[in-house]
Amino acid sequence: MRKIPVMPPVNSPEELRRLPERELPAAAKELRREILESVSRNGGHLASSLGAVELIVALHRVFDTPREKVFFDVGHQAYAHKLLTGRREGFAKLRRCGGVGGFPHPEESPADPAVAGHAGVALSEALGYAAAAPDDPDKVIAVVGDGAAGNGITFEALNQVAECPGRRRLILILNDNRMSISGNVGTLSRLLNRVIAAVSYNRFRSALKRMLAPLPRLKLLFTRVYEAGKSVFLPPAVLFETFGFRYFGAIDGNDLGQLLPTLRRLRRIEGPVLLHVVTEKGHGVEFACADPIRYHGIAGCDPETGTMSGSGGGFSAAFGRAMEQLAGEREDLAAVCPAMIEGTGLSRFSLRYPERCFDVGIAESHALTFAAGLAIGGKRPVCAFYDTFLQRALDSVYHDIALASLPVIIAVDRAGAVPDGPTHHGIYNCGFLRALPNVTLIAPSEEAEIEAALRFALDLAAPVILRYPRGKGAAAREVVPFRMGRAVIRRTGGEDSPVIWGCGAEVETALQAAESPALRPWNCTVVDARFLKPFDRELARRFAARRQFTIEDHCISGGLASALREALDDMPHQAIHAFGWEDDRPVPHGEVPLLRAANGLTVGQIAEKIADICKKTPN
Amino acid sequence: MRKIPVMPPVNSPEELRRLPERELPAAAKELRREILESVSRNGGHLASSLGAVELIVALHRVFDTPREKVFFDVGHQAYAHKLLTGRREGFAKLRRCGGVGGFPHPEESPADPAVAGHAGVALSEALGYAAAAPDDPDKVIAVVGDGAAGNGITFEALNQVAECPGRRRLILILNDNRMSISGNVGTLSRLLNRVIAAVSYNRFRSALKRMLAPLPRLKLLFTRVYEAGKSVFLPPAVLFETFGFRYFGAIDGNDLGQLLPTLRRLRRIEGPVLLHVVTEKGHGVEFACADPIRYHGIAGCDPETGTMSGSGGGFSAAFGRAMEQLAGEREDLAAVCPAMIEGTGLSRFSLRYPERCFDVGIAESHALTFAAGLAIGGKRPVCAFYDTFLQRALDSVYHDIALASLPVIIAVDRAGAVPDGPTHHGIYNCGFLRALPNVTLIAPSEEAEIEAALRFALDLAAPVILRYPRGKGAAAREVVPFRMGRAVIRRTGGEDSPVIWGCGAEVETALQAAESPALRPWNCTVVDARFLKPFDRELARRFAARRQFTIEDHCISGGLASALREALDDMPHQAIHAFGWEDDRPVPHGEVPLLRAANGLTVGQIAEKIADICKKTPN
Repeated sequence: MRKIPVMPPVNSPEELRRLPERELPAAAKELRREILESVSRNGGHLASSLGAVELIVALHRVFDTPREKVFFDVGHQAYAHKLLTGRREGFAKLRRCGGVGGFPHPEESPADPAVAGHAGVALSEALGYAAAAPDDPDKVIAVVGDGAAGNGITFEALNQVAECPGRRRLILILNDNRMSISGNVGTLSRLLNRVIAAVSYNRFRSALKRMLAPLPRLKLLFTRVYEAGKSVFLPPAVLFETFGFRYFGAIDGNDLGQLLPTLRRLRRIEGPVLLHVVTEKGHGVEFACADPIRYHGIAGCDPETGTMSGSGGGFSAAFGRAMEQLAGEREDLAAVCPAMIEGTGLSRFSLRYPERCFDVGIAESHALTFAAGLAIGGKRPVCAFYDTFLQRALDSVYHDIALASLPVIIAVDRAGAVPDGPTHHGIYNCGFLRALPNVTLIAPSEEAEIEAALRFALDLAAPVILRYPRGKGAAAREVVPFRMGRAVIRRTGGEDSPVIWGCGAEVETALQAAESPALRPWNCTVVDARFLKPFDRELARRFAARRQFTIEDHCISGGLASALREALDDMPHQAIHAFGWEDDRPVPHGEVPLLRAANGLTVGQIAEKIADICKKTPN
Repeated sequence: MRKIPVMPPVNSPEELRRLPERELPAAAKELRREILESVSRNGGHLASSLGAVELIVALHRVFDTPREKVFFDVGHQAYAHKLLTGRREGFAKLRRCGGVGGFPHPEESPADPAVAGHAGVALSEALGYAAAAPDDPDKVIAVVGDGAAGNGITFEALNQVAECPGRRRLILILNDNRMSISGNVGTLSRLLNRVIAAVSYNRFRSALKRMLAPLPRLKLLFTRVYEAGKSVFLPPAVLFETFGFRYFGAIDGNDLGQLLPTLRRLRRIEGPVLLHVVTEKGHGVEFACADPIRYHGIAGCDPETGTMSGSGGGFSAAFGRAMEQLAGEREDLAAVCPAMIEGTGLSRFSLRYPERCFDVGIAESHALTFAAGLAIGGKRPVCAFYDTFLQRALDSVYHDIALASLPVIIAVDRAGAVPDGPTHHGIYNCGFLRALPNVTLIAPSEEAEIEAALRFALDLAAPVILRYPRGKGAAAREVVPFRMGRAVIRRTGGEDSPVIWGCGAEVETALQAAESPALRPWNCTVVDARFLKPFDRELARRFAARRQFTIEDHCISGGLASALREALDDMPHQAIHAFGWEDDRPVPHGEVPLLRAANGLTVGQIAEKIADICKKTPN
């Protein structure tokens, strides 16, 4: 891919609207080149953002953006939108500190009406926005992927549309790329995929009209039958029309020649309307089209060949291997996952044990409640989540799993800060989870412990949650067997030495800090908490007379530090210092090491801070 | 209502199945009498449970329960099921300590496969249960109310049915009583209500067949048109058949003569099937039929006349009054509520300002995300929730409201323990909410403070959550103006006196404890925390040298006690003792004063405990 631009970059919707129409395809091409260049270098969401380029160009061309609002559902399709709304410079540093984030955010640009990192919310937001000024003639547009459309929140919104003031302003664009993150699942997707081009349906309609002409008695029925015909030939039409939409489409969402006139027409008519556009994930970049699942979200690649920057391995892979191993040993093991099969490491498992692997689509609450049903039926379900998406199903953890103490295991990947930014950090859940009855909450400290933790959880036959971060853990140590609620001392320091508690991968941070020059003289004890719940209260209390520190990849409130405080605070104890993400301050996107440095969480910073505190208030 | 039983009580499904069929109506009548008697005395859910009696009798009659599982969605319809499955004695003490709970719970009976207090989960659970043994010939039945069917989780499950193993076992019974808690909203409900008796549809089908007979070319189209006709005459049929169900109904769900043969037929055929039954909320009890919203959940009433035991007033009423007042003052105020208009005190508001009151149905996540859209559009939405249902929308608080710091106010009623039991206690949310950026979390301590807190929140123009308990607060004091993050000293004790922190209505508990004989000699200081976030760190640290106590109607972890610990723990401070609900131990159902007593949370118990601790470790 050469760096010669196809045409000069377009930097604002106004510029785009001033271009001659014939230059739009070139503008789209330039946007696509820019996306490929930045994502291949910085990592990010490639395939879906490439697929949505023409749609975004057409939206900004036809509508008076940013006055007319476009709500993108799961904003990783919206990179072209970022480029077209004055964020070109920042886009070169996509997902890096100082660059633009991977998702729309109103703090980044007034062209982003809402934060859009979790799926299924755009229709709700657009409907609320439209209802705020029902008589405003401006259109309100929600762009929803076919995967996200299966999320419960979208359905809840859909169910309200027909009776909501402001619905006349609403244009729902169903961006049908036939994918969630993984291949698509669910009736809704199948329905969309069954669309026969409007041509066939129209042909049937005309034929019917001709044949019924000689039968006057049937004339009254005709309008009804006409509508009814849609249910056979355009199943999604009937579904969405049931909910009050007029259905248009399906049209080719990578063809400006179809998009522009259709959008212009929709802009003039009264809503709610739904436009079904079919786009190709990866459009315009051969290797991305060929394997859109692989190129959904990437850490980086060669922009010419698509060869991936090496990642692989890590906690997710260890989880995947352990699941394969355990499935071979026990028939009752099943996996449940809301559209994150690849990311959570379950790809091989899903191929090897398809009948025991339930990808339920982007349906986080249902995933856990379905798993509860499996458990009631005698299975041992293991649910694979990203931490940030578990936030969407906390009531299912409580109501459907914890209260009945069902043996459901939840494996929580991406627990901790991630490059994607505030919508995706996994740092908020422990405060809720630790309060739930019957739940055990484990943080394996390295990859090799994942299998042991799963075995421990299977033996328990009660709800167990495992939390582990994105990426690689420390070099393998010998795995110490798990014992309920028992922490493990990883470094035995001096008799009155300060104690550093770590949990999960932060145990390694604690060990490195303890060994660092600043802290060596204090000969610290390092404890791997292992169980955030039940916490090793006894050990904590044994150390009460010592200075204690906690390191965790979580908010300071709710996790390890809170557990330690609760264990100690009805007895005299030394002050505690907690290292973690500060509450009340959103952690931005960016390279995780830089985010850590900005928050005083590198090994060096932690060691120095601990040494400093110990100097000032020696035991 | 006389106490003479209509027939001897039936105590088990086996007994029911042994009865002559002609005696079933009498058995239903007896169950209804028992329900009315117990609910009128103990409080509970009257109208929906009366409506479901015949359906439950028919299910136990036709299916081999409890081997064949029935998952009730929102189990308050399931009282007759409790009576028929060996819980008659406990039912006399419904919702009281030692009696049965108000919702199904596997700990109470093996006839309850799942916990069922929150709406929308039964189909997910039933599907999971069926998938656990796809080849088992036993049927799996989910009984879902029409209100609950609009919940996002149900839709997520629906979306999976057609491709889920075990679907052949599935019978979904849509118990259409044309109500959520309030009147029903949403397209789905309207659709169901539009059902024309199968008679009309069948008549149309025959006519069409006759008329098309002379046209052989149309014969091929006939099957399709036949199917299509359903979309006109049986709209719910087409919707549910889209998702893979065979639709049956609608039939009269209070008529055993229709229910029994239909269920027998469904038991023989292959699923997934959906049976649409229309039941009457309050059936068989005149006053309950006449006003099913009022008799949905009651505190108690005269079983003959329906005259309610006095309740009224309290925090909910104060909230409703404040909303009316504020709506008169500002045009931009709007209310959003997921099907709890009456319970949260918004009835009058909804009548007076219908265009500014959005009841979105049982759709908790959508309620908040829709409110986010309203706020983006310049409105000032106030969302009215019960605390336990806010658990279902925590990600919406974070992702859609907090991250963008939108000025959405969430008024959380029923925060704290309630008689309904573990599915409904509002004691788990603060651990999550306190960690969220940009959010202010206020606990008004008495009814009169609600309006002042709302005004403070409206001035803030950022996300604010108010939490207050069910029922009445203390006698009105003069309202001290709210100042960000500032606690209020409610009783100034001696200079080195112990300090008791209370939050919300527990401030009154703290004051009463301080004045009680056991504690008078200690002359305690009582602080009303007011802000759980930002917490009054400065005041807490000023008291560091004193003994400090916290009282809260929340789990001990995550709320007030945690906030105080965080404020203090990097400095030397006296030990803290926290009064609240113990984590890790589900709080059962029952009279709240008794629940408090069992957990050491009465005024007397708290006063004695504090005095005891102070004696042992005086300052």
